[in-house]
Amino acid sequence: MSPRYTRLVDSLPATVPFVGPETNERARGAVFDARLGANENGFGPSPRAIAAMSAASAGQWMYGDPENFDLKQTIAARMGVTPAHVIVGEGIDGLLGYLARLLIEQGDPVVTSDGAYPTFNYHIAGFGGVLHKVPYLGDHEDPTALIHRAREVNAKLIYLANPDNPMGSWHSASVIETMIAQVPDGSLLALDEAYIEFAPTGTAPSIDPDDPRVIRFRTFSKGYGMAGARVAYAIAAPGLIAAFDKVRNHFGMNRAAQIGALAALQDDAYLAQTVAKVARAHARLNAIAAENGLRALPSATNFVTIDCGKDGDFARKVLAGVVKRGVFIRMPFVAPHDRCIRVSAGPDAQLDAFAAALPLALAEARG
Amino acid sequence: MSPRYTRLVDSLPATVPFVGPETNERARGAVFDARLGANENGFGPSPRAIAAMSAASAGQWMYGDPENFDLKQTIAARMGVTPAHVIVGEGIDGLLGYLARLLIEQGDPVVTSDGAYPTFNYHIAGFGGVLHKVPYLGDHEDPTALIHRAREVNAKLIYLANPDNPMGSWHSASVIETMIAQVPDGSLLALDEAYIEFAPTGTAPSIDPDDPRVIRFRTFSKGYGMAGARVAYAIAAPGLIAAFDKVRNHFGMNRAAQIGALAALQDDAYLAQTVAKVARAHARLNAIAAENGLRALPSATNFVTIDCGKDGDFARKVLAGVVKRGVFIRMPFVAPHDRCIRVSAGPDAQLDAFAAALPLALAEARG
Repeated sequence: MSPRYTRLVDSLPATVPFVGPETNERARGAVFDARLGANENGFGPSPRAIAAMSAASAGQWMYGDPENFDLKQTIAARMGVTPAHVIVGEGIDGLLGYLARLLIEQGDPVVTSDGAYPTFNYHIAGFGGVLHKVPYLGDHEDPTALIHRAREVNAKLIYLANPDNPMGSWHSASVIETMIAQVPDGSLLALDEAYIEFAPTGTAPSIDPDDPRVIRFRTFSKGYGMAGARVAYAIAAPGLIAAFDKVRNHFGMNRAAQIGALAALQDDAYLAQTVAKVARAHARLNAIAAENGLRALPSATNFVTIDCGKDGDFARKVLAGVVKRGVFIRMPFVAPHDRCIRVSAGPDAQLDAFAAALPLALAEARG
Repeated sequence: MSPRYTRLVDSLPATVPFVGPETNERARGAVFDARLGANENGFGPSPRAIAAMSAASAGQWMYGDPENFDLKQTIAARMGVTPAHVIVGEGIDGLLGYLARLLIEQGDPVVTSDGAYPTFNYHIAGFGGVLHKVPYLGDHEDPTALIHRAREVNAKLIYLANPDNPMGSWHSASVIETMIAQVPDGSLLALDEAYIEFAPTGTAPSIDPDDPRVIRFRTFSKGYGMAGARVAYAIAAPGLIAAFDKVRNHFGMNRAAQIGALAALQDDAYLAQTVAKVARAHARLNAIAAENGLRALPSATNFVTIDCGKDGDFARKVLAGVVKRGVFIRMPFVAPHDRCIRVSAGPDAQLDAFAAALPLALAEARG
């Protein structure tokens, strides 16, 4: 007799939110020449963070501090909040999982955009939540529609990424501030700012950290180039932050990662360099798109979404052609955004590989 | 208005399973001279693992492989199972949390020993499970009583650590094999073998990896000295292993930790050295106890539980006296085991600090 799973677990499908590039590499029997599919930051962590993590390797016999005290102090000071407003966790993915667990019982309504972050959806479904999806407005998430639907279905939770993934679009701070003011009583806005370091000044809203209507997420995976370290944080009212302590894996943080994140925060100059390199990579990706008769969408992230100009089937062919030439990229899952492919910013050699692969893939896709 | 938490979350207390040593250090305003309280392995990771993690620091811009493919292959080969029998996760703590989520709905019965691993209890309570605790038999967990109670309450899950924490005691393989044969239909035995590398040959039971009645947990935190890295695994029937994929944080593993664990597995000579060093530390701790008129209990782990010879109040005074002298140790939480203090094996300098602190703490406790 099998173990007796919960009724919810029995009902869950055996899907995964994303297939990793290593899985593709094993299938094709060779590593990728360029890794531009997961919005990893190929410019890498700050040398200070690398040195700190490297030096911390011998000390990995010790558990990490379960309170993440030093990291929370530093984050709080930078964000202008108190440490009681900060929760540190195993990536935004890990924190979204905890948040879903805190709020969502079977049947509880949750609102997101159709085509937004699949891992959010995975966690909501994993706790039995019911997802209500509103369409994007063109290539932008639609705050007004999200709020409207949230009222309609009495949503416990609303998800918005600003800047957005997978389209790279963004709203200004004032749009988000207006949205927050309209969050219905008893709803919580999960504002995913994973890409905020790449966005223009004036994108991050001003939020009262005691506002019970919103929790904002930041990560070391993108701007700080430390996706493999698994460190992110959220800022919210102390009551909500304290609730995470009821359910989280208290000793779940990698000790070297804690130390590396702290070092990364102390190297603003490197972050600025990274942002400048990403801007140059965007210009290059825009040029590559144009050379191939395609249009790159404006981006406030570390990736560029390129409109392949036809439908999803065509873009999937282009993607397959790029991938089989050793360049790992991904694309939006949902129409009409699946007319696009999504390419992460990265060092020149990686973009060269993409530049070489794209025209061949396009020619093939065009038959 | 606050976010609307689940009814279960509203009912959960704001407790944490363990307070980290860093919290004590902040309270006392100084770091500990010796860190012997969390059964960390002060002999540290294999130099190969340190080198591998250090070298992987620059590559932390990449997410870890969500399938943990290489690590699972190697673990499977060593354990004589297939990769489909292996799940890798963020420490045994992380895996126990996933297991609780897979099996436990509100009100579901779970059986453990009174005084066994608090983090298991934390996860069960966190999913609304009802814990039924059976007493130890002296200083040993009582497999017969666990099975009996599991039948009585129709337990979905049974927890047993072998070797045991916090008492350091153990049962032979044949006792565990007999226990597994008696696991009731529809119950699952969670066999926590965190300390197995330190146990005498003949402690690890032979288990059919397709047996649906048992899941065994192993970790890199103890024998391999990598607690801060957060890598553990479980071996179970493929159906149960596949169920973890429905709920786990697929990109939750630190990439350098994956690489370090793989390197650690390839250094059996270092593991053997560690085990020998721990045995020598045990001899030293036994001698320290004897010099102070106390009895050290036999141990198949990397810690020694020392009977202070009186009641819990006395042992708590001894512990406080040791801790205030800069030596981090812990003690069992539950009577009658709280007559003991628990001291991790460690390098000589750390044991020297304990040897210096103990007689003073004892004198103070005796008034």
